[in-house]
Parts: sequence; C-alpha cells; structure tokens
Amino acid sequence: MSNGLDNDKAKNVSETLAKSTLDGVNSHGVNRFPLLLEYIRTGQVSINVEPEIINSNNSFCQINGNFGLGILNAQFCTNKAIEIATKNGIGLVSLKNTNHWHRAGSYGWEAANKGFILIAWTNTIPIVPPHGSKENLIGNNPIVIAIPRKNNNHIVLDMATSQYSYGSIANHARQNKELSYYGGYDSKGNLTKNASEIRNGGRHMPIGYWKGSSLTIVLDFLAAILSGGRTTHDLGKNSNIDTGMSQVFIAIDPKTFGNESFQQNLIDETLENFKAYSVGEPDSIRYPGEGVLARRKNNLKNGISIEKEIWDQILELREEK
Amino acid sequence: MSNGLDNDKAKNVSETLAKSTLDGVNSHGVNRFPLLLEYIRTGQVSINVEPEIINSNNSFCQINGNFGLGILNAQFCTNKAIEIATKNGIGLVSLKNTNHWHRAGSYGWEAANKGFILIAWTNTIPIVPPHGSKENLIGNNPIVIAIPRKNNNHIVLDMATSQYSYGSIANHARQNKELSYYGGYDSKGNLTKNASEIRNGGRHMPIGYWKGSSLTIVLDFLAAILSGGRTTHDLGKNSNIDTGMSQVFIAIDPKTFGNESFQQNLIDETLENFKAYSVGEPDSIRYPGEGVLARRKNNLKNGISIEKEIWDQILELREEK
Repeated sequence: MSNGLDNDKAKNVSETLAKSTLDGVNSHGVNRFPLLLEYIRTGQVSINVEPEIINSNNSFCQINGNFGLGILNAQFCTNKAIEIATKNGIGLVSLKNTNHWHRAGSYGWEAANKGFILIAWTNTIPIVPPHGSKENLIGNNPIVIAIPRKNNNHIVLDMATSQYSYGSIANHARQNKELSYYGGYDSKGNLTKNASEIRNGGRHMPIGYWKGSSLTIVLDFLAAILSGGRTTHDLGKNSNIDTGMSQVFIAIDPKTFGNESFQQNLIDETLENFKAYSVGEPDSIRYPGEGVLARRKNNLKNGISIEKEIWDQILELREEK
Repeated sequence: MSNGLDNDKAKNVSETLAKSTLDGVNSHGVNRFPLLLEYIRTGQVSINVEPEIINSNNSFCQINGNFGLGILNAQFCTNKAIEIATKNGIGLVSLKNTNHWHRAGSYGWEAANKGFILIAWTNTIPIVPPHGSKENLIGNNPIVIAIPRKNNNHIVLDMATSQYSYGSIANHARQNKELSYYGGYDSKGNLTKNASEIRNGGRHMPIGYWKGSSLTIVLDFLAAILSGGRTTHDLGKNSNIDTGMSQVFIAIDPKTFGNESFQQNLIDETLENFKAYSVGEPDSIRYPGEGVLARRKNNLKNGISIEKEIWDQILELREEK
C-alpha cells in the first residue's frame, strides 16, 4: 500500500501469501514478500495495470497480464475460467506477459472451494536441464490440478516438474542433510542425493528422467501457443528472473450433468484403501493435498511461524515506504 | 471381420494397430492383435455396440463406451472433441465403460494431423504401487498431449506415469539386460535397475516417486468424475484385465484467434536450441514425438518387422474363424 497499490489489491496479495504460509508452503508464502516488494520497486512487477482481455469466445479467453502482479493476474484468470465453466461446463483461459504467481496451489484451492475442477500451469525461465543435456534449457513449470470434495477436503496436486524445488535443495545443502531420493546429478553426471553436489557443478533433474522432461516441454509449448505468449527458451534470452511468463487455466464444473455424488464416493473409497496399504518407508501414501490439510489444521490451532529474519525485513520495509 | 465386425470398423482397428507398429510402438501395435481377438471372442470386448452420448452441451459431452472396442470408442471421442473445439475453441469429451485404447499416441497424432491440440488420458486397473506402498493400488494411466506443427512434424507426448512399461521391464528381464535408469524396487525395497528383481518380488515405480504417484491419482479421479465412470480402485475389484475404464479427451483449436504462426517459430527455435546442447549420456535430448517420426521414416523406407511368432498366430487366427 505504501508503494501505491490499491488497498483491496494489497489485501488480496497479502492474504494469498499468508494463506500459503498457513498451509505450510513457506517457500511461496510470507517468505517471498520482501522479494516481491523489491520487484515492485525495481519495476519488474507493475502495480498500476489491469489484466486485459485480448480475444474471447464463449469457451476460450486470452488475457494479457501486462506484467502486473502474478497473483492478481492468476486470480483473475481462475475466476474467468470458472465464469465460463459455469455456463458451458468447461472454460479455457490463457495468460501472457504475467509475473510469478507464487504458489500454484493457491488457485486450485480457490477454485475447489467454489466447487470447480482446475487444471492450471505456468512456464518459467530455463532452470532445469532437459533429459540428455547439462544445460538449463527447460523450466520446472509448476502445475496444479484441483478436484473439489465435500467439507473442503479437496484433492489438490501442486507440483513442479523438477524432482525437488530450488528451495528444498538449498535447504538440504545448508543443513548438510541428504535428500530422501535422488534429486539430481553431481558434476560427473552421476545421480546423487547430496544437495551440495547438485548445487556445486551438478544439476537438477526433471521427474522420471525423459518423461518429466517431455512433460515439461509440452506444458511450455501449450502455454505459449494458447496465450500467444513466450516460451521458456524465449524468456531465457533476456532475463534470469521470472517475468513475462505464459500460463493456462482450465476450469471444469463437475456438476455440469449432475452426477457428482457417485464419484465422490468412489474417491473416498480409494483414499480409505490407500490408508490400509500405506507402508511408510520412509513415506506413507499421501493423496495430493493431504499434507496441506494437515498443516493447515495444525497451524490454525497453534499459529504460523515466520522466520525472525524475514519478519524483521518486513517490518523494516514498512518503515521505508 | 470373420468374428462379425463390420468391414469398415475392422479396417479402422487394424490400421490403427498397424500404424503403431509402423511408428515403432510394437507393444501396442500388431503384437496385440491376437490378444484383442481373444478378448472379442471371450466377450470382454463387445463388437456389436456403438458409443452412446449420455449428456452433452455446447462444450462438454459424456459418452458411454458400452464396453465396445477401445480404439473405436477413443476415435469417436477424439473426433467429437475436435468437432466441439472447431466451434468453440475447446471441446471436452469424457468416456466411461470403454476397453483398452492400445496406444495413447494414436489419438494425439490423429488430432494433430487435423490441426488440433489434444490432451487425453485413460485410467487402468491397479498395476503400480503408489509412493509409500508395496501394493499395486494405482494405474499407469497413459496420457497423450499432442501439438500440431507444419509438415506433420507434430509434438506428441505419449507416456504412462510408471517409469517403465510392463512390456519394457519384461523385455529387459528376458534379455537379462540392465535398465538404463532405476525402474522400480527389489524385494527389499531398494531402487534397482535389474528388471528381473522388479518382476520377482519387487515392484514398479511411478515417475518421480511421490510426484508421479500424485499425478496418477488425480488423472484417475478426473477421468471417473468427468465421465461418471469407474476409478482404478473400483476397476480392480472385479477383474485383473483392463476393461470398463474411464477416459478424458480435451481438444483445442490453436487457430481459434488466428495467432498460431508466432508460437510455431518459437517452438522451432526451442527445438534447434535443444540440438545445440544435447550431450547423449546415454541419451540425447529428444522432443516428444521425435523418436516416432524417425522410426516412421525408417520403417516407411525399409518396411516394418513383425515377430514371426506373432505373425504365425495371426495367420492361424484367420484360419480359425
């Protein structure tokens, strides 16, 4: 607000970040607020712009994000996709020239709270080598797939297509802790669980070797084609920070033909069956979103913790104006 | 035809299988013809039924496959999704009670040949353990994502969500050949490249551990919810062969707003850049569909090879009637 953003918009962005921290997704929550403010101050993120409809018909809508706040652009597109899906059963919205949407899951949980399925993804600058290369040529293109369930116990897949996030590798390296699973290659090209080796001369890897690599490539191309926006390779030409990305939002109304309840029961049955066969070595079976729901419940009871360093930065930023 | 299938339909199914073999996807090509005929003869696959529209609006259409031929049902749904997308930009078709569609890629290449993007997937019976379990509780839910390019050099991702297919693990085990990458767990729960250990007391694994496992789960739930059909868990209750599956077909017209050419150039640029940074250790970067195009070109020139055993079976089946 002290930098000129409308009160309503500022509240919206802040709430989205706070909710991510509430859900235990600290990497894309309050922790990123100082960086976001830096981007606003340096002009990478524009605050006096609105998402603009470039083309639309009754099912498909293309939006220009005008390099505005990634969170507000993504919310606008999610709501637009839901609006179309309410009428038609399915709505496709594509977005170009946007900025970091922070947590992919935010938009999935929002859509599911409204009773809609959401399939949405973003491309990014090149930060992961494709299978068969040592150079960072592809993104980690986070994707969210949300399925509404009763009592807001939604199924929400929120994942990047790299095996581990940058934040997670950095944390493991700092704490000198081994990754639970192979997370990349060392400088000699061998798979490793050593996060420091991945960071120092090594490289990240996509999930499932060639498979995640290929999935990442098609998500990038689809986002660029559908939005008329930029590809990962194109984004990497001018910048090593994430700006100008392309995104896709597909909302579907599961109640279009009124037969939702049957499948909700089948889903419940599947999840109960998972519980019966979970072995915990080292992980138990968790359905997508299960961890978020547990962390949210815990944090709502016990409060959320913010690193002192980040909180002090935020307080300082408030004074600076 | 000798079992009562219409000539046109028989031609269509046979051509689809032959084209898969032409493209080097032998596991889902002519090799499966004897098995398909067995399923027709035992009644698992019905040949005297038609796909039936249960519900539809101007964007979304639900089909009952009536346990007919999986290939014909999937072709019907692909064409229906394209028909809707031609009018609206995007078309969603869901299918329940279908049978094995054989090669996911078939429908992607068909859609791309007509100038359409296709995103389609199927669920399967439980054949892979989810991350955190030793029991086969999830499918390998093959997905195809096709993006049309000029001169039919399409981008087509065609993958199952398990790290290796059953066919590939079986081939490696038979030939006593090590897998290039970890493909599953041995009986003690350790990651292994030994295909025999995966088959004997071990287990397959999803791509990217918990990530591919979660992706598989949401693809299954979406297919069941959107089609009003069955989940993997439900399919596993009655049968250990694939029948009654749920599928989703989303077609998008990339020319809806007429801005296709710009992104085609950006895609070409990305692919050229891949070539420049390919290291080949042991794999080179390959874009999705690149292998198919190379094998198709080679086979069109040199002919396709069919295992003598399979060909003899087919000739015998012809005599049997």
